[in-house]
Amino acid sequence: MAVDKKVSSVVIRRLPRYYRYLGDLLSAGIVRISSKELSRMMNVTASQIRQDFNCFGGFGQQGYGYNVEYLYNEISEILGIHKGRNMIIVGTGKLGMSIAGYGNFKKRGFNIIGLFDHNPDLYGVSVNGIEVMPVTELEKFLDTHSVDIAVLTMPKESVQEVLPAIKGKVKGIWNFSHKEIPTEKGLAVENVHLSDSLMTLSCKIGRMEK
Amino acid sequence: MAVDKKVSSVVIRRLPRYYRYLGDLLSAGIVRISSKELSRMMNVTASQIRQDFNCFGGFGQQGYGYNVEYLYNEISEILGIHKGRNMIIVGTGKLGMSIAGYGNFKKRGFNIIGLFDHNPDLYGVSVNGIEVMPVTELEKFLDTHSVDIAVLTMPKESVQEVLPAIKGKVKGIWNFSHKEIPTEKGLAVENVHLSDSLMTLSCKIGRMEK
Repeated sequence: MAVDKKVSSVVIRRLPRYYRYLGDLLSAGIVRISSKELSRMMNVTASQIRQDFNCFGGFGQQGYGYNVEYLYNEISEILGIHKGRNMIIVGTGKLGMSIAGYGNFKKRGFNIIGLFDHNPDLYGVSVNGIEVMPVTELEKFLDTHSVDIAVLTMPKESVQEVLPAIKGKVKGIWNFSHKEIPTEKGLAVENVHLSDSLMTLSCKIGRMEK
Repeated sequence: MAVDKKVSSVVIRRLPRYYRYLGDLLSAGIVRISSKELSRMMNVTASQIRQDFNCFGGFGQQGYGYNVEYLYNEISEILGIHKGRNMIIVGTGKLGMSIAGYGNFKKRGFNIIGLFDHNPDLYGVSVNGIEVMPVTELEKFLDTHSVDIAVLTMPKESVQEVLPAIKGKVKGIWNFSHKEIPTEKGLAVENVHLSDSLMTLSCKIGRMEK
């Protein structure tokens, strides 16, 4: 299933959630689901679900519901799951190590093949058989390995220092540092700001209290 | 500045990003900024910026730009920063510990006052003077302390077990477990799915490769 280039990034961003819910339905042995049922479960309108799925050419049959497994597999393919993406993690503090140790990534075809840090105390520490290497080795590593994604879990200050070594050698950056990295031609970027969602939560609480 | 109840959650969700950019401008000594300049920096349209700020009653003067410090302070107030929110973290694996050790939360008035885990090996381990306690102590703790936010950084399977102890005793849940928790009356929820953004990134890379 080819993804239409015109599909908006807003729809793309909703796909992982569909993927999760469909995966749960699949595990529960559910074979078919209507947009109405999916709508109730996910708390989005049935018409949004139909519109979103239509962006990718449908998948459903009127009055008959969606085939859960088919839909799950199609969305999985659009998301590039099981494509075998190689990742490295730069910054092996607690957050970096938490990502390194998360088993579900490997199951979905995201393979961590390198860990890097500035802190000599961490060199040689191993997670799932991968040892932490000095950041100074990063450039050589990228020249000799095929890396799709660099995960940046390091302080803002260190980002400018490693970016030149990374750019042009990876296809995407999953950025947890507090410095937003702009998307460029040939470089996909996802900037994650964990504290943004805490502030959003705080705002929601403030509105409840009024 | 009172937040209009009708302001959409989409706008609310954009506020933390404005807050970050304005904080950087403030640190750099910038006094005024036009929506056009802010638009270029943030890569959103100037008209969206004006519309977003209008939701909260403006803040700007036509042809004169926005006062950075004023805007920063107003958004900070809307977000409930420096309100002194007490938080507990349930699940002190690497992700929970990474949140517990993050200094910026305290600076913004989010105080971690309790850490809980199921793993006896972690009992008594201390982060910033707070010791990890058994999850069995959670209910008693919530009865004797004023807690605004429960951070859930635990496996999906354990969530159902702790939810009854938490509900009705906190105002918000910052949920990192892989089980989505629905918002209820009197309970604000932010569900964070880290791997969603990795899948979005993977999808973007897939589209680049075509």
